[in-house]
Amino acid sequence: MKLFNNDDTKVFALGGLGEVGKNMYCVMHNNEIIITDAGITFPGNELMGVDYIIPDFTFLKKNESKIKALFITHGHEDHIGGIPFLLNSVSIPAIYAPNQAVGLIKKKLEDRGIQYKNLFVYDENTKIKFKSIEIEFFRTTHSIPDSHGICITTPNGTIVTTGDFKFDFTPIGPMANLHKMAEIGKKGVTLLLSDSTNALSEGMSMSESKVDGALQEIFAREKGRIIIATFASNIYRLKHIVDTCKKNGRKIATFGRSMDNNIEISIEGGYIKYKEIFVTPEEANNLPPDKVCLLCTGSQGEPLAALSRIADGTHKQIKLQQEDIVIFSSSAIPGNALSISRTINKLCLKGVQVYTNTSLSDIHTSGHGSEEELKLMLRLMKPKYFMPFHGEYRMLKKHADIATLCGIPKENTFALGNGDVLSIYKGEIKRSGTIQAGDVYVDGNRIGDIGSVVIKDRNIMANDGIIVVIANIDTINNKLLGKVNITTRGFVQVNENEELLRTIEFIAKKAILSKLDKEVNYSEIKNEIVNSISSYTYNITGRKPIILPVIMDIKKNS
Amino acid sequence: MKLFNNDDTKVFALGGLGEVGKNMYCVMHNNEIIITDAGITFPGNELMGVDYIIPDFTFLKKNESKIKALFITHGHEDHIGGIPFLLNSVSIPAIYAPNQAVGLIKKKLEDRGIQYKNLFVYDENTKIKFKSIEIEFFRTTHSIPDSHGICITTPNGTIVTTGDFKFDFTPIGPMANLHKMAEIGKKGVTLLLSDSTNALSEGMSMSESKVDGALQEIFAREKGRIIIATFASNIYRLKHIVDTCKKNGRKIATFGRSMDNNIEISIEGGYIKYKEIFVTPEEANNLPPDKVCLLCTGSQGEPLAALSRIADGTHKQIKLQQEDIVIFSSSAIPGNALSISRTINKLCLKGVQVYTNTSLSDIHTSGHGSEEELKLMLRLMKPKYFMPFHGEYRMLKKHADIATLCGIPKENTFALGNGDVLSIYKGEIKRSGTIQAGDVYVDGNRIGDIGSVVIKDRNIMANDGIIVVIANIDTINNKLLGKVNITTRGFVQVNENEELLRTIEFIAKKAILSKLDKEVNYSEIKNEIVNSISSYTYNITGRKPIILPVIMDIKKNS
Repeated sequence: MKLFNNDDTKVFALGGLGEVGKNMYCVMHNNEIIITDAGITFPGNELMGVDYIIPDFTFLKKNESKIKALFITHGHEDHIGGIPFLLNSVSIPAIYAPNQAVGLIKKKLEDRGIQYKNLFVYDENTKIKFKSIEIEFFRTTHSIPDSHGICITTPNGTIVTTGDFKFDFTPIGPMANLHKMAEIGKKGVTLLLSDSTNALSEGMSMSESKVDGALQEIFAREKGRIIIATFASNIYRLKHIVDTCKKNGRKIATFGRSMDNNIEISIEGGYIKYKEIFVTPEEANNLPPDKVCLLCTGSQGEPLAALSRIADGTHKQIKLQQEDIVIFSSSAIPGNALSISRTINKLCLKGVQVYTNTSLSDIHTSGHGSEEELKLMLRLMKPKYFMPFHGEYRMLKKHADIATLCGIPKENTFALGNGDVLSIYKGEIKRSGTIQAGDVYVDGNRIGDIGSVVIKDRNIMANDGIIVVIANIDTINNKLLGKVNITTRGFVQVNENEELLRTIEFIAKKAILSKLDKEVNYSEIKNEIVNSISSYTYNITGRKPIILPVIMDIKKNS
Repeated sequence: MKLFNNDDTKVFALGGLGEVGKNMYCVMHNNEIIITDAGITFPGNELMGVDYIIPDFTFLKKNESKIKALFITHGHEDHIGGIPFLLNSVSIPAIYAPNQAVGLIKKKLEDRGIQYKNLFVYDENTKIKFKSIEIEFFRTTHSIPDSHGICITTPNGTIVTTGDFKFDFTPIGPMANLHKMAEIGKKGVTLLLSDSTNALSEGMSMSESKVDGALQEIFAREKGRIIIATFASNIYRLKHIVDTCKKNGRKIATFGRSMDNNIEISIEGGYIKYKEIFVTPEEANNLPPDKVCLLCTGSQGEPLAALSRIADGTHKQIKLQQEDIVIFSSSAIPGNALSISRTINKLCLKGVQVYTNTSLSDIHTSGHGSEEELKLMLRLMKPKYFMPFHGEYRMLKKHADIATLCGIPKENTFALGNGDVLSIYKGEIKRSGTIQAGDVYVDGNRIGDIGSVVIKDRNIMANDGIIVVIANIDTINNKLLGKVNITTRGFVQVNENEELLRTIEFIAKKAILSKLDKEVNYSEIKNEIVNSISSYTYNITGRKPIILPVIMDIKKNS
């Protein structure tokens, strides 16, 4: 890493730049490293079978002794989901998080059987001082209570990271602390890192309070059961729904593990009142329709989530009734449009009435600020330098443009990638090399043992299947022993393609025999099998399955 | 099929209800069957490796002798893509299509080596009479020239099918024939089948002419190369782009096979003028940037399409330049949001300026009518009965509601599924049973040999891979011969997991030996292998790969 000199302060991301997910930003000064957030990403379809993506922790592992603490801005998965994996590979002296996030982190560690003692709650009045770095916090508004921005003071300047935020002047929870933000801005901010998720949206996001009105209108009008699907992580929305049910005399049954967890932790933390309003699914089934609300996961059409099973008619406890009303109090995460519309079609087929945020826009609002809110943050903090974070590249770039509109010189804005390093020295910032960063795949309970070859093989098998060709060869007498065995999966329907498979067997046998007139060379035989079968199958079927030849020599192995 | 009596007329869909795709609607009276359209669907991600979905032609095959003709409303894939497959399995005496569609169908048949003599052009003045059914046409507006609705007169009443349409009072091509529609409506329509694609959109769709203004504005301002990605099937958009290039002195190079085909056929048909404006990629590379427009496929971020390869930097002929402008003159088809944003991010990273229909809404408009246009069609045709078609169920249902707003009694609207039959008798319509209908998968060049087992296997392998376990058994002496061979694909990275694979080998060996103390039973051994390995791999890795045991007996097979 190139440095101004040894006394500079470095800022870099291990995740969160060029993507919406796995947020992890670091500030390093001499022998001190401060980490903010440790998130995961849920991968797209093309990463076959990968459950999560986490940041590459190599740099942290190598600099383990310098790490002072991990600070969490709020309790969403893209900010806390990576903690169990981080703790399993890197020693972290302390984790500081706001109250609601601490509840979620505890549950997460408990589920994975991880013992960790140094998890501390911070609030807006907390100040933490390390040798050369000081940390303080300011309250923001997001879709989960206790979201905070973090102000990191170093000998070379002050760095502010917003966490996820929107501005909502009629919020459900407490107001964001505009005055503290103004104060921090007035003292002078060298570098602002700010949330770019909705940088492409113009204007200002709708207040969460407006959702209240839209929900109340539906509750007042409808007499059937009300089924609401929403993000389990959107605690303010859950609070809304609970309050609206209370007002309208409906009991609530919840469905989905993440929903249960979030409700439980929010009741414990006092964010959701009226514990007595919750009933079991059985109790709900015994109440009149207009006294019931079913609150469930599955707003993205996830096939195994509660709502999808209800729509499919495969849910054990809930059967749809003609008079039911289903509300999607959510928006479509890009990539989920098809699964959501599939769920809606099934619900419509059952005769149920469906409200979505396209049919009734006030039914959902985002937790991230749009352009004008981003400008307000920029104006309050009035930083000398700006680094958009939390977003795909096009969002970062737009956010940098927005910063320029707010008076920050273009050359002082940095739309970077993970691993790119900024070096701060006496209030001046320069690009300064890169450190190791990237995607690490978690599949099942194993970290990082899925590489590009595995993903490539999965892709081929997903599209065209596999043909396994097994032959026993007597390498002493250069003879093929027994039949060549052809087994396929995902290639063609076996019982309807016996002739095709016999031909493949014949081709394989011919390929093997053609190579047995001289000393046996396994890879030559395998190549011949692969080439002759793949050209035949491509001609006949138009498919390119994996051809997997296994040549065995029993005598040698015995 | 239940009938009113033998003289009724039946209407049913083999495709197009409950989906956007593979449109195929039939009218049957006594011994006459009229088919309108023969489309394909492009499947979603979950149908691993399936290239197209076509309708199940079983009913047509069984009633082959009754088929009089196939009528095509317009030349889009979801209306003509199924023709080669239909002709390969069912004898069709004649195909009637409008001029532009005939060009596209000819090309399609030629590409697949299909000889077919009875392809005829119709226009608005054509009338075709069979024994008891009469056909006439009316011009509509859509994103491709020569779109028509079809009016089918039977002894039991008149059936009108709109094809795909919008109303555009300032169209690029000729006006839709409002007067003929009005005339048909005045004479009396028993049943209207109408396009539901945009039934969920309120108001009225934007005129195609407005796109002209938006394009011209960009062309007038920008001095770099202009790269435009759009649907190759949107012929009016292509015409626009060509005209705008002509006006602004830019030459056009085209990229992508479907783009080349559509341009060629549109020039032949006279829909696109200025043949001399087209240059080769090499010529384009030798022109100044402000004299060039590159017109390419890939507006949906398809990984192999021209635009994606340009964005990746892997396109042989086109390298991006900082001053390039990329215009997505298109909208996102549901399910493509992720691949599109990936392409945009890559373009932004290269420093290119990107316009999309979210950043500049006038850059694209749909070819399908919104709510108010659907109402206009309903008011013009004023049918006694209404059957929404061309749409997912939620769209059909909404379109039925729209029809009710326009005075059609709710009980006279039929939001049906493929295979559901309507029976018309003396102007009265009833539901009347179902016929065989469904999805047939085309993978590579093989039709229907992909079933649910193959898809299921592909899904498992896509997520967790496959473990092949091979053992040779001497069934005479009940002995395991040689080593047990373990080969995996898509499961774990092999070189980093040698111990895991050795343990699996050990477990497999133990499983086999445990079953060799009595007469050898292959399926018992296989079950034991599958059970013991799958519980081990699930515990250790959290994955559930396909376990494929292959037990061979060389002596027996020799």
